[in-house]
Amino acid sequence: MTGLPGEFELIARLAALFGTPPDGLGIGDDAATWRTTGNTVQVATTDMLIEGIHFRLDWTTPGDLGWKALAVNLSDLAAMGATPGRALVSIAVDAARREIVLEVARGLHSLAERTGTRVVGGDTVRSPGPLVINVALVGEANPARLLRRDAARLGELVAVTGHLGASSAALALLSERPAPLDPAAAPLLAAHHRPVPRLAAGQLLAACGVRCAIDISDGLASEALHLARASEVGIEIDVARVPLDPAAVCLLGERRSRELALAGGEDYELLFTFDPRLADELASALTIDGGLTVVGEVTDRVAPGTAQLVEAGHPVELADSGYVAF
Amino acid sequence: MTGLPGEFELIARLAALFGTPPDGLGIGDDAATWRTTGNTVQVATTDMLIEGIHFRLDWTTPGDLGWKALAVNLSDLAAMGATPGRALVSIAVDAARREIVLEVARGLHSLAERTGTRVVGGDTVRSPGPLVINVALVGEANPARLLRRDAARLGELVAVTGHLGASSAALALLSERPAPLDPAAAPLLAAHHRPVPRLAAGQLLAACGVRCAIDISDGLASEALHLARASEVGIEIDVARVPLDPAAVCLLGERRSRELALAGGEDYELLFTFDPRLADELASALTIDGGLTVVGEVTDRVAPGTAQLVEAGHPVELADSGYVAF
Repeated sequence: MTGLPGEFELIARLAALFGTPPDGLGIGDDAATWRTTGNTVQVATTDMLIEGIHFRLDWTTPGDLGWKALAVNLSDLAAMGATPGRALVSIAVDAARREIVLEVARGLHSLAERTGTRVVGGDTVRSPGPLVINVALVGEANPARLLRRDAARLGELVAVTGHLGASSAALALLSERPAPLDPAAAPLLAAHHRPVPRLAAGQLLAACGVRCAIDISDGLASEALHLARASEVGIEIDVARVPLDPAAVCLLGERRSRELALAGGEDYELLFTFDPRLADELASALTIDGGLTVVGEVTDRVAPGTAQLVEAGHPVELADSGYVAF
Repeated sequence: MTGLPGEFELIARLAALFGTPPDGLGIGDDAATWRTTGNTVQVATTDMLIEGIHFRLDWTTPGDLGWKALAVNLSDLAAMGATPGRALVSIAVDAARREIVLEVARGLHSLAERTGTRVVGGDTVRSPGPLVINVALVGEANPARLLRRDAARLGELVAVTGHLGASSAALALLSERPAPLDPAAAPLLAAHHRPVPRLAAGQLLAACGVRCAIDISDGLASEALHLARASEVGIEIDVARVPLDPAAVCLLGERRSRELALAGGEDYELLFTFDPRLADELASALTIDGGLTVVGEVTDRVAPGTAQLVEAGHPVELADSGYVAF
């Protein structure tokens, strides 16, 4: 939702220009990979956040911004089953606000310490306009256990970690309601300001034999479509099974919470597919990092390359104002 | 000159916050390094360029911008004696100018192909303000042959590759003179728009036994000070020995060209120190990438941690409008 218009096509053209590396994944998955010497692959990703587009400093503290700038990249590594890593951080800010850089760095450092990430370099530059922060992150993975977008297979179940919609519920409350917010909003604000990437879950999924995952940054419906396209399979999502955030349901109601869970974005949970025979082992493994909820299946009832939301067995569509029955 | 005010102190505080990795170099050299499995180290760097600060699209084509965004990072790897590498590229642009992204990518791809760099990922985002491009680059080096900023030793000679001042001479001509420019300015414009990083020179220096280098992005005087501080030695630069660009001398005169060579910036040549016994071998090796000119020495005539310009044996200082005799 914050990308460029025509972003899919633009990225396809960029991917064609730069090509696919012979020893790994290039443009098109959560992260790029390449082999070095040894038995691991390097896994790398980058994200740029722009003031006014991705964050507002009246809603987000500089420390939270630093945390989140790293979190969105760690979430990409989680979705590859990779371990962090080394980070390079670039920040552009106008000279009058230069003290912000240290606050951003402190927030980023908190999450780096918690996740075993090391900030090894960066760039600080003067910007006449919005504050810009870019994080590039390099981690490692076992090449035989990478979680890819293009590995979903017919007959697999589709599941998510944790609950969905908390971050976008916080954003809705921040933009629609006067401060101070209801104390019940605290867990939603925490999910929005300091999301904790599912690094343990990603590595556990990979270790248990899961091969297909993506992180949920733009809403479940959009990410399911990414998996369906990359894997050339049909994915059906039962909207009634989507795990809603309890605080969101309490403050915004079930219908609105479900819309936000499907289309809200910034959840940084994982969406993945798996052989039904792995169900018990996965459910047990994931208890330590967010749990697991089956929300659909990879099925030939849905055309390859598409994702279909269903409710009580009937197709529903996402509209700008939420999902609607056909 | 395009950094934040107080940038030295800010970077020192960031380096203290993030610490030094136990297995490599952190913040403070041209690039960060860390060990993976095998006998190489990973070498990584990042640079962010902001429209209106680092470039103007009425003076620079989008293709040249893409080239340069990669070149400045490759120059950092050259100054470590490293080989490229994998690049992650983030671009922020307003929606109305989205076609620029592909032109930027094509220019970047030209230099990537020429240097064996592979663009493996990136991020394209919408920006309401200036165009922003960030490149993060990961390469490799032999850990025993890294070129570091802190390795200059008393008695060594100080040298540069190529000629200095061409890029800033182009910038002076672009800003001071009406178009069209004198045809003699063509090599200066090429140096400004499509600088060719000294990757071969960096690797040759490392192979010949040089241990201390930095790339010249902010002017010779400033980079000599970086080496002197990091190595805790005194460096003396004889301004008469600084190799001036012949086209700059032709169009701007010798005095102005010398000022630009000392303080102009964006040369992307290498500044390095070496044991005088290596002189012949280095001169021979560097004939294939820019040549070598001795411009000074590491000496106890100059206080440790400082760099001194001299002319005919007398100290001179850089002023805003050039260097001046004491």
